[in-house]
Amino acid sequence: MVDDREPAARRPGGRTARVRAQVLDATVRLVARYGFAGFRYEQVAELAGVHRMTVYRNWPDREKLVAAALTRFGEQEVPVPDSGELRRDLVDMLLGLAAGLESTTGRALFQVVQGARENEEVRRTVEQVFQRRADLFGQRVDRAVERGELPPVDRRLLGDLLSGPVHLRVGRDLGPVTRADAERIVDVVLAGIRATATP
Amino acid sequence: MVDDREPAARRPGGRTARVRAQVLDATVRLVARYGFAGFRYEQVAELAGVHRMTVYRNWPDREKLVAAALTRFGEQEVPVPDSGELRRDLVDMLLGLAAGLESTTGRALFQVVQGARENEEVRRTVEQVFQRRADLFGQRVDRAVERGELPPVDRRLLGDLLSGPVHLRVGRDLGPVTRADAERIVDVVLAGIRATATP
Repeated sequence: MVDDREPAARRPGGRTARVRAQVLDATVRLVARYGFAGFRYEQVAELAGVHRMTVYRNWPDREKLVAAALTRFGEQEVPVPDSGELRRDLVDMLLGLAAGLESTTGRALFQVVQGARENEEVRRTVEQVFQRRADLFGQRVDRAVERGELPPVDRRLLGDLLSGPVHLRVGRDLGPVTRADAERIVDVVLAGIRATATP
Repeated sequence: MVDDREPAARRPGGRTARVRAQVLDATVRLVARYGFAGFRYEQVAELAGVHRMTVYRNWPDREKLVAAALTRFGEQEVPVPDSGELRRDLVDMLLGLAAGLESTTGRALFQVVQGARENEEVRRTVEQVFQRRADLFGQRVDRAVERGELPPVDRRLLGDLLSGPVHLRVGRDLGPVTRADAERIVDVVLAGIRATATP
């Protein structure tokens, strides 16, 4: 059981981190299966193989539990790589995004998110997760601008231009997004950003 | 009632066309409310103000009725304009797409489509509708290429690059897509297509 005096995020790699990972992974699977409001803490504990009180004590707020779980899913399944080479990293990011969206859990989560948008709590949670991803992506773009790989750019526009086509293709089930697809998207978008930059 | 000897599509502007429009508009609203399989022909007739047999006779195939209804919704709500000026037309097309997706019916249809993807009939129907839109868009792009406004281009890639960001923004409920948003998307994508064209 996770001790109250040791917040779950504190010791990466330790037992606490392992329990945290188990609980959040279980939560993702249950949200995907039963929706935001449809799963019970008991199910999380059972699926994670931890005591029920561990879940209650460490994530007394259901909304925060779901947000942490979705954030973890996003960071693990759809990382924002930084090898130092912008084009390669963006291509890898889009391939990661496609794989995450195409996965069984990704599809189920997407359904849940789409279907529950009227719910204020769900909306806030999803916004947090998107904001976290947008921040990571923004940091990656800032480093590219600092390195002179890109002109100063509207990070949100860039993010939407890159990931929009991937979301669309996966959403329409038009076969997997290949590396060649991702490269063409990245090449056109980067060329367009450079060509339209105001000096 | 629509006469069997006069297929509904034959006489635009006539009584047949009016009945056709009433039936298809009613179908769109019912699909949005009850899903692909959840509405009944009786409801269509009642909402359209026509005789039940009119619906059965003219659209004996439920799948084709839904496809015709969604195609009509798409063509009316999200037209592919051709004023002769490519940039303006693409901006208007994206604003139309955003408005269609943001509308109550558009949102409901999107939910239904997303939620019913496992169903083979739904899938085929939706593919027909997308194909019809892709064809219209492709014809518009071909004219731009003929006029020298664009280099030869992968029409599907261009369509995904333009409409992907709009789908994403509406899907995430991040406020309306403005004309300035649409212009920036179109400008970056067109510049990128031109810059990456192989001579």
